[in-house]
Amino acid sequence: MIKRCLLVLGMGLAFAGNAAAAEQVDLDMVGRIRQEAFHRSQVMDTFSYLTESIGPRLTNSPAMARANDWTRQKFGEWGLVDAHDEAFDGFGRGWEFDSASVEMLEPRVTQLYALPKAWTPGTKGTVEGEVIKVEIKKLADLEKYKGKLRGKILLLGDAREYKRGTEPDSHRHDATSLEGLQEFTIPKSMDKDRAKRLKEYAERQELTRAINAFLAEEGALAAISISGWDNGIIRVGGGGSRKAGEPVGIPELAMIAEHYNQLARALERKQPVKLRVNVDARFTDETDQPGHNTVAEIRGSSKADEIVMLGAHMDSWHTGTGAADNAAGVAVMMEAMRILKAVGAKPRRTIRVALWSGEEQGLIGSQAYVAKHFAHYPEPTDPAQKALPASLREPTGPLRKLRDYEKFSVYFNMDNGSGRFRGIYAQENIAAMPIFEAWLKPFNDVGATSVVTRNTGSTDHISFDRVGLPGFQFIQDRLDYFSNVHHSNLDTWDHAEAEDLKQAAAIVASFVYNAAMREEKMPRKPLLED
Amino acid sequence: MIKRCLLVLGMGLAFAGNAAAAEQVDLDMVGRIRQEAFHRSQVMDTFSYLTESIGPRLTNSPAMARANDWTRQKFGEWGLVDAHDEAFDGFGRGWEFDSASVEMLEPRVTQLYALPKAWTPGTKGTVEGEVIKVEIKKLADLEKYKGKLRGKILLLGDAREYKRGTEPDSHRHDATSLEGLQEFTIPKSMDKDRAKRLKEYAERQELTRAINAFLAEEGALAAISISGWDNGIIRVGGGGSRKAGEPVGIPELAMIAEHYNQLARALERKQPVKLRVNVDARFTDETDQPGHNTVAEIRGSSKADEIVMLGAHMDSWHTGTGAADNAAGVAVMMEAMRILKAVGAKPRRTIRVALWSGEEQGLIGSQAYVAKHFAHYPEPTDPAQKALPASLREPTGPLRKLRDYEKFSVYFNMDNGSGRFRGIYAQENIAAMPIFEAWLKPFNDVGATSVVTRNTGSTDHISFDRVGLPGFQFIQDRLDYFSNVHHSNLDTWDHAEAEDLKQAAAIVASFVYNAAMREEKMPRKPLLED
Repeated sequence: MIKRCLLVLGMGLAFAGNAAAAEQVDLDMVGRIRQEAFHRSQVMDTFSYLTESIGPRLTNSPAMARANDWTRQKFGEWGLVDAHDEAFDGFGRGWEFDSASVEMLEPRVTQLYALPKAWTPGTKGTVEGEVIKVEIKKLADLEKYKGKLRGKILLLGDAREYKRGTEPDSHRHDATSLEGLQEFTIPKSMDKDRAKRLKEYAERQELTRAINAFLAEEGALAAISISGWDNGIIRVGGGGSRKAGEPVGIPELAMIAEHYNQLARALERKQPVKLRVNVDARFTDETDQPGHNTVAEIRGSSKADEIVMLGAHMDSWHTGTGAADNAAGVAVMMEAMRILKAVGAKPRRTIRVALWSGEEQGLIGSQAYVAKHFAHYPEPTDPAQKALPASLREPTGPLRKLRDYEKFSVYFNMDNGSGRFRGIYAQENIAAMPIFEAWLKPFNDVGATSVVTRNTGSTDHISFDRVGLPGFQFIQDRLDYFSNVHHSNLDTWDHAEAEDLKQAAAIVASFVYNAAMREEKMPRKPLLED
Repeated sequence: MIKRCLLVLGMGLAFAGNAAAAEQVDLDMVGRIRQEAFHRSQVMDTFSYLTESIGPRLTNSPAMARANDWTRQKFGEWGLVDAHDEAFDGFGRGWEFDSASVEMLEPRVTQLYALPKAWTPGTKGTVEGEVIKVEIKKLADLEKYKGKLRGKILLLGDAREYKRGTEPDSHRHDATSLEGLQEFTIPKSMDKDRAKRLKEYAERQELTRAINAFLAEEGALAAISISGWDNGIIRVGGGGSRKAGEPVGIPELAMIAEHYNQLARALERKQPVKLRVNVDARFTDETDQPGHNTVAEIRGSSKADEIVMLGAHMDSWHTGTGAADNAAGVAVMMEAMRILKAVGAKPRRTIRVALWSGEEQGLIGSQAYVAKHFAHYPEPTDPAQKALPASLREPTGPLRKLRDYEKFSVYFNMDNGSGRFRGIYAQENIAAMPIFEAWLKPFNDVGATSVVTRNTGSTDHISFDRVGLPGFQFIQDRLDYFSNVHHSNLDTWDHAEAEDLKQAAAIVASFVYNAAMREEKMPRKPLLED
């Protein structure tokens, strides 16, 4: 049996001369966590089940519901308590697709590759039509297409020039790139830009609704846009509308650049182009439905009413299997909880895990959870603000803090792909940095070394951060996240590596355990409005 | 009007102290060629027509016949003479495919991406079946599958681990990499290996025929193997058999690694896997047909019976559009001929262009052409040798030289993708090097600088080289030839660049003009058998 010891760690390099109190770390427990994480891992079983048995998990799709069920059940099996799904409003309808086929019939016969945008209708069988190019950049552009679209298949834009790959697909940090992250860029004022962007956002939303209604009314068969990336990768999100009662438009697909450009160039040459399209896609609800986060916990002991959280979004886009984005994060967070149970952790604070939904459409699940449990800003009255997902709105009026606001310690999130942890973004919480340095020390040998002041954005820790609660994400090796897999049909099992996920799970388990055990809650940075 | 002048160029760096005679270059003509190539180029029109109007050009397919017709007609339009198709025997049947769809029905429903191997049959409508893995490495392995394959879809092998891309997709030469090409590696003796490889080749051929017959007889619905490359790219060649009377097996497809691996892993987990497959593919002939090279020329004047040749293979694989491999080469060689007519070149020797077929199956078209016009080795009596494509056979007995053998000067080929020319491989023809240095000099400014002793292999210049005739290929920037496009469904228009093809056409036009004008024919290296 391993001797239990509490080692008082000195501060990390960055804080060598700092007066911050030394941070105690239970190295015996860290050792147990490492053993369980590295030698008895189940993280790949979880990752495989989510990606390959359940598959992609679009918010409110039947697959997402299966993921809620399966993960809740797993939490129960592992001895977590209060495993439940927690509903949130404001999402819309479920949608799924089974197949999508596009064939070119003219100017020559061949198979083309395209996949549907989420929340666009299927074709209800095979349709064939002539292809024409349309360019609709503003409402007034609709007029010129009136009466001209019936039975047509629409190309939404020109050919795009191929962008040659001059950097390696896959990237891992080295000492130099990590050092580069230590620099903090003082933000420019964005106020003017923000107003402009808001206006443009509202206009785009209005234009989209008008186009959807127009194309359906005019009887166009389908619309095709170019994939966001080259090299045969289909990078695509949503189209149509997920909101019941809004026009969903016509079947819309994103096509690989190499095929789309052929069509566009043929039209430029005035060659007739004819396609056959069959998209088997459907809305799975008639009316808007609540989304669901799956939540479970390990109850604390002496400080059971105080909360340490960890989480990751379980929803994904629909064309890959939502592997790096974000079965990886879910599998790691679940594994961290399993490890803590397996090593017999008895935390002082309650450790709660949340598997969010609706992240891809604007952090909807986590924002709703934080609003319900911890704090929220009043509903905006400005219509431009109301049109935004709540997580993206400007704070309006004083923050309304709920009872658990003061009971909350910290939230850790994972949503930067499946790459190895190399440290943590302190999100400008300077007081948290020496704590993180101490917690990372036992993982320096597996490559996690850096605590940086920088903010990292755009995922569920922001739902906490924006109401003044400590919420963090880890620095990760990028791998091929932004070259191959992010929101693409290649976001699949193969692009992840087991060793990276095992390392991440060990670090998360250790971090949340440390957070649950330390004397004080995690220090907070001041709310900007205070 | 530009003043015509003949400049006597000194030798290139490598031959600065050499006693080789100075090489005369008609710089006025080179200037005209550059003007036409860079400022009035039609190379992209040709490239576009071949890739996008005709599409992929599998040997003996209807599309290849259309390419023969169109290029022959173009040569006529441009004022070339004796434009004709020249038949060769020994290829087999034509084949083409229109569409290929694979859907997973179990363990979950989704669209998968796979394309057929050439010369395998279609499914004759939609088929559905359970997936099983088979491993057939030798004839004896067939026995264990007897009676077990009816109605099944076969996976031919295990999942393959993802190979992370740690080099940039696209590569262009720089001074260092070009310098590296200057080193010549003295070849090891391969005799023992060769006998072993021959035996293995014959055994593989026999096994393939036996498997094809067995799978069809046992009533398997289709077979799927993994694409040669990752990242959603389908890299695939032929299967079945192109020879009339041989068993063609069952429909066989290559699937993207990200999808194939999902199926393989599901089977490893003992999950039932069910697929729906529809491949619309067909043989276009009942009996073996001759293949066709397209040939045309500019007649010489004072040395009209002596021949300078240039060429590129026009056949391609079937899943992309045969762009880098090798519409690029065809477009450049055609453009070189067009340029020579446009600038009013009156060569002393005859300049003949050949657009080969059957290259991908073993240089069949060019080998047959060389055998018919210039020289060939006697038919082998060894059955192992007879089983090989003629271009790959060991020389047997003395070379039979035809009348035009001594009239032949040189052949230039292009088949290393669409990248810019950076010099030329001298193919160990040391006497040719100072000549090439002089010819390259007026193109040093567009990046073509290097003459290297190295051999480069595996395409149609080898049909000349192996009978002792000077045959050369240029050093080219690799671009993404070996990361994305070679023999893949991404071998399409977008991965080429117009400026590179213009540069190549100018150099080829200039080289063949120089070869046609110089006093002597190109020096030859000794035949090894002499």
